[in-house]
Amino acid sequence: MDAAFFEKLGDAARRAIAGVADLTPDNKEKVAGFDPVTEADRAAERVMRDMIEAHFPDHGIWGEEYGWSREGADTHWSLDPIDGTRAFICGLPSWAVLAGLLRDGEHIAGMIDLPALGERLVGVEGQALRNGTPIRVSGCVSLVEARIATTDPYLFDDHHKPRFETLRDCARLTRFGMDAMAFGRVATGDLDLATDVGLKAHDYDALVAVVRGAGGHVGNWSGGSDLSGGDVIAAASEKLYDEAVRALER
Amino acid sequence: MDAAFFEKLGDAARRAIAGVADLTPDNKEKVAGFDPVTEADRAAERVMRDMIEAHFPDHGIWGEEYGWSREGADTHWSLDPIDGTRAFICGLPSWAVLAGLLRDGEHIAGMIDLPALGERLVGVEGQALRNGTPIRVSGCVSLVEARIATTDPYLFDDHHKPRFETLRDCARLTRFGMDAMAFGRVATGDLDLATDVGLKAHDYDALVAVVRGAGGHVGNWSGGSDLSGGDVIAAASEKLYDEAVRALER
Repeated sequence: MDAAFFEKLGDAARRAIAGVADLTPDNKEKVAGFDPVTEADRAAERVMRDMIEAHFPDHGIWGEEYGWSREGADTHWSLDPIDGTRAFICGLPSWAVLAGLLRDGEHIAGMIDLPALGERLVGVEGQALRNGTPIRVSGCVSLVEARIATTDPYLFDDHHKPRFETLRDCARLTRFGMDAMAFGRVATGDLDLATDVGLKAHDYDALVAVVRGAGGHVGNWSGGSDLSGGDVIAAASEKLYDEAVRALER
Repeated sequence: MDAAFFEKLGDAARRAIAGVADLTPDNKEKVAGFDPVTEADRAAERVMRDMIEAHFPDHGIWGEEYGWSREGADTHWSLDPIDGTRAFICGLPSWAVLAGLLRDGEHIAGMIDLPALGERLVGVEGQALRNGTPIRVSGCVSLVEARIATTDPYLFDDHHKPRFETLRDCARLTRFGMDAMAFGRVATGDLDLATDVGLKAHDYDALVAVVRGAGGHVGNWSGGSDLSGGDVIAAASEKLYDEAVRALER
């Protein structure tokens, strides 16, 4: 797998979405009267699946809209054609096209494509790229210095909420509302830590290789690497991640 | 006052900010080692003040960085060269250049410029424009249908927090983290209501004419039009605003 395939995949998804929902700001009215998100979601997933099938007929595919093809394959793709649907329907630029590639359960490549910002983040072959140029995390190692983000603090349940608030109290500043873009901003060095809870595999599979390729660390709220519980932290360093986990455990 | 002056003003501010902090994603490293936000703030305010002085020597100017010139003038400008500093330093696109124009205390024109998105919203002569094209609010009249936003729910004090949570419970969906961009998204019809508390005059003076020019309604949390308490609501209709105030008063 190389970055060129992700470029083709992202371009195809952008075209499919733009074909359903005109994304230019002055023409939103065109999409009134039907549900452009659902149809744009489906159209983008279809073109990505078709492209993967054509290039990698042995690979499995799991997509949010159409489920499994070849479940059980050693190598599989995890697709979320529009992550951040709420942002998308509110004209906010944080929505993303997500594609992750896993082999034997390990995240080996991924793409966070941000069409509204014209930015494509790709993690592949142990590095991370933005529009083809290598990116690095900030390297921040201290929670009191850290710029952190979560999408929606009201998504935390009674177990998570006080723990998140301890993390927030320790951090330098906290931003909200970013969806997968926040994890991308950790990879680009603009944020130092991003976390969300209740994520599904298609929400996080794409970001792991991007963040790790940029030198960051990804793990769960308990200090482990199993993300299947949906509690995901991406940090600019392992030290910062460890400190965040300690804050969450207080 | 016409839209052309705001175009010049916004262009000058963008150039000043870009001259200090390279805003192209791949070159953030260039600005390491000094505080680009503060210097970009100052540079942008200086060029806006110089341009206003040259064109309108009788107008007063209040700016966040340099304070008052000709305080007490019938007509004055209210400038925030970079609103959303936290977003700016986190590489998030919601930061804005804000300029409002008041005559005898009335908001007669304003600009929400979103350089990271290439979008300039101008409210002038009773209408609102995005990059020169007229925009309209959604016209939403029902809180249960409304897409609402606030910047940071942790900014609410014990008085505001439960009231906001009632509003949130009634609304269709709630987004966070947008700063002045949220008010702009009400004007463009993408969001139906935006609210923040604790705002200063330079935070809200620019947005009033934009939202009203697009057909929206701006008021405070108590049902009045005096914004000086810093509790500001922009809504897609007066009916939605009234409903929101009733929810906040429960």
